[in-house]
Amino acid sequence: MPRSALATLDIPADPQALAQAVGQGMYSIDPATQAMGIVLEMIAPGEARMRMTVRRDMLNGHQTCHGGFLFAFADSAFAFACNARNQNTVAAGCTIDFLAPGFEGDVLTAYAKERSLAGRTGIYDVTVTNQDGKSLALFRGRSYRIKGQVIGQTPEA
Amino acid sequence: MPRSALATLDIPADPQALAQAVGQGMYSIDPATQAMGIVLEMIAPGEARMRMTVRRDMLNGHQTCHGGFLFAFADSAFAFACNARNQNTVAAGCTIDFLAPGFEGDVLTAYAKERSLAGRTGIYDVTVTNQDGKSLALFRGRSYRIKGQVIGQTPEA
Amino acid sequence: MPRSALATLDIPADPQALAQAVGQGMYSIDPATQAMGIVLEMIAPGEARMRMTVRRDMLNGHQTCHGGFLFAFADSAFAFACNARNQNTVAAGCTIDFLAPGFEGDVLTAYAKERSLAGRTGIYDVTVTNQDGKSLALFRGRSYRIKGQVIGQTPEA
Amino acid sequence: MPRSALATLDIPADPQALAQAVGQGMYSIDPATQAMGIVLEMIAPGEARMRMTVRRDMLNGHQTCHGGFLFAFADSAFAFACNARNQNTVAAGCTIDFLAPGFEGDVLTAYAKERSLAGRTGIYDVTVTNQDGKSLALFRGRSYRIKGQVIGQTPEA
Repeated sequence: MPRSALATLDIPADPQALAQAVGQGMYSIDPATQAMGIVLEMIAPGEARMRMTVRRDMLNGHQTCHGGFLFAFADSAFAFACNARNQNTVAAGCTIDFLAPGFEGDVLTAYAKERSLAGRTGIYDVTVTNQDGKSLALFRGRSYRIKGQVIGQTPEA
Repeated sequence: MPRSALATLDIPADPQALAQAVGQGMYSIDPATQAMGIVLEMIAPGEARMRMTVRRDMLNGHQTCHGGFLFAFADSAFAFACNARNQNTVAAGCTIDFLAPGFEGDVLTAYAKERSLAGRTGIYDVTVTNQDGKSLALFRGRSYRIKGQVIGQTPEA
Repeated sequence: MPRSALATLDIPADPQALAQAVGQGMYSIDPATQAMGIVLEMIAPGEARMRMTVRRDMLNGHQTCHGGFLFAFADSAFAFACNARNQNTVAAGCTIDFLAPGFEGDVLTAYAKERSLAGRTGIYDVTVTNQDGKSLALFRGRSYRIKGQVIGQTPEA
Repeated sequence: MPRSALATLDIPADPQALAQAVGQGMYSIDPATQAMGIVLEMIAPGEARMRMTVRRDMLNGHQTCHGGFLFAFADSAFAFACNARNQNTVAAGCTIDFLAPGFEGDVLTAYAKERSLAGRTGIYDVTVTNQDGKSLALFRGRSYRIKGQVIGQTPEA
């Protein structure tokens, strides 16, 4: 669906229903997240959980999951969490620490949670774990709110 | 080529020739870097430059290059730079700051350069620029040297 | 007390008692933490909580607490948390995000908690809050274990 | 001098003269930088260099310079560099990597240089070196421009 289609969607009044509508809308226009096979398992205001299986084309020269894909996975969970209140928000910067390798076939979970939101700026922590609950990466993202909404008619438009 | 094939390669005595042999070897066994269409343009001890064109399947919901792919691109340049002396080295952690968006069709360059190397730990700065020389992202990676070599027979093996 | 005096201290068998003995020992030989008026309120394996009052000589040109002192405060809590198991550990790197300013007279708390410990490397999160419970800064530290112990005779010595 | 006195200062038209006037003004109202014995050696638009001698009260329990003081020193150089165009600017977040220890009596230099400035946000790299030119720390700061000027009458006031 084209991004413009999101503007035609209704804006639910309930924050949780809104977060879910935003999540579905964002996912439908996000080729990168789709191409990585990422599944959105849960979304709530300031929070999101996603699942991704490590594929062969995500491996690096050490035959472990390329750090870029662990990052991209965490970054997607961060993006959904920080847009869940339906205010267009982008990443300003991120830090990731790699704790343990991921292997082909691993089923990973990324859980993103808001730590702070003040003015236009937010801080989100994302933990990436494997199917055994082992932490593979800790990610911290700084968000910056820009103009507009994710779904529905932006008032000033 | 399987990773084991790298062990059969000769180890050039000249540091620059060694860096190039390591670069070719790493690239040949790195499905993720290949799948992103990344080209290794230059490699030297502690240094690497790569090129990547932003594809449609790298876009996020804002129709700009997903931060995860900008990161993965910078991370690949970092990986080649920090392994170029033929000592197996992995990423311990990274920080990225996003300065400007990338768009479909943009031809990006990632230039990685060693800032520090002491004991097993190194610091590398990577700058991602577009075809107009505009900086899109600044990346800083911390590397950690592990056992073994990238190409050739590891002495202790 | 000189650092050498720490080697004469007994090593408690109980992990919590050990953490407290390490905390007292470290504090006694840490002029910087003392000079900032920092009080160690709690220490446990992988955990520490400290208190500091913002003084006039900690203000910057905006008349708010210099970011360097917020960092130093968080960094001290991190150092005590990551040494609490009595293995000499140093900071490899840190990230801090400033959320709100601190003012003269504010009574700040820094709470440090281990998020990961694998091999020689650990990750610790520190939150700095003021007397109203407002978060002023989020800090993430990466630790690296070196040789020796904080208190008692190091076995290999 | 009280901060209000800065509003009475003339604003030089030349960017370099402006940077120097801002530097003198900021320094005069910055108790923390003064208390650490930091000397402002050079300031220019987007650039600053400072000097600090490691004192005994800056040592930690390992008898090396407390990471907090290395950070505070780098942070001061960052603050002067990002305010040198006379637009009030604060730190949003910072990353520091510690490369080598500083010892009592070491004469340290912090050199801060702008890497990017777009909209209200800037990125600055600071390198801390000792008297032998050895790098002790690499610091990266993200700045955020707020209302007002450092010296002179703010137009909107």
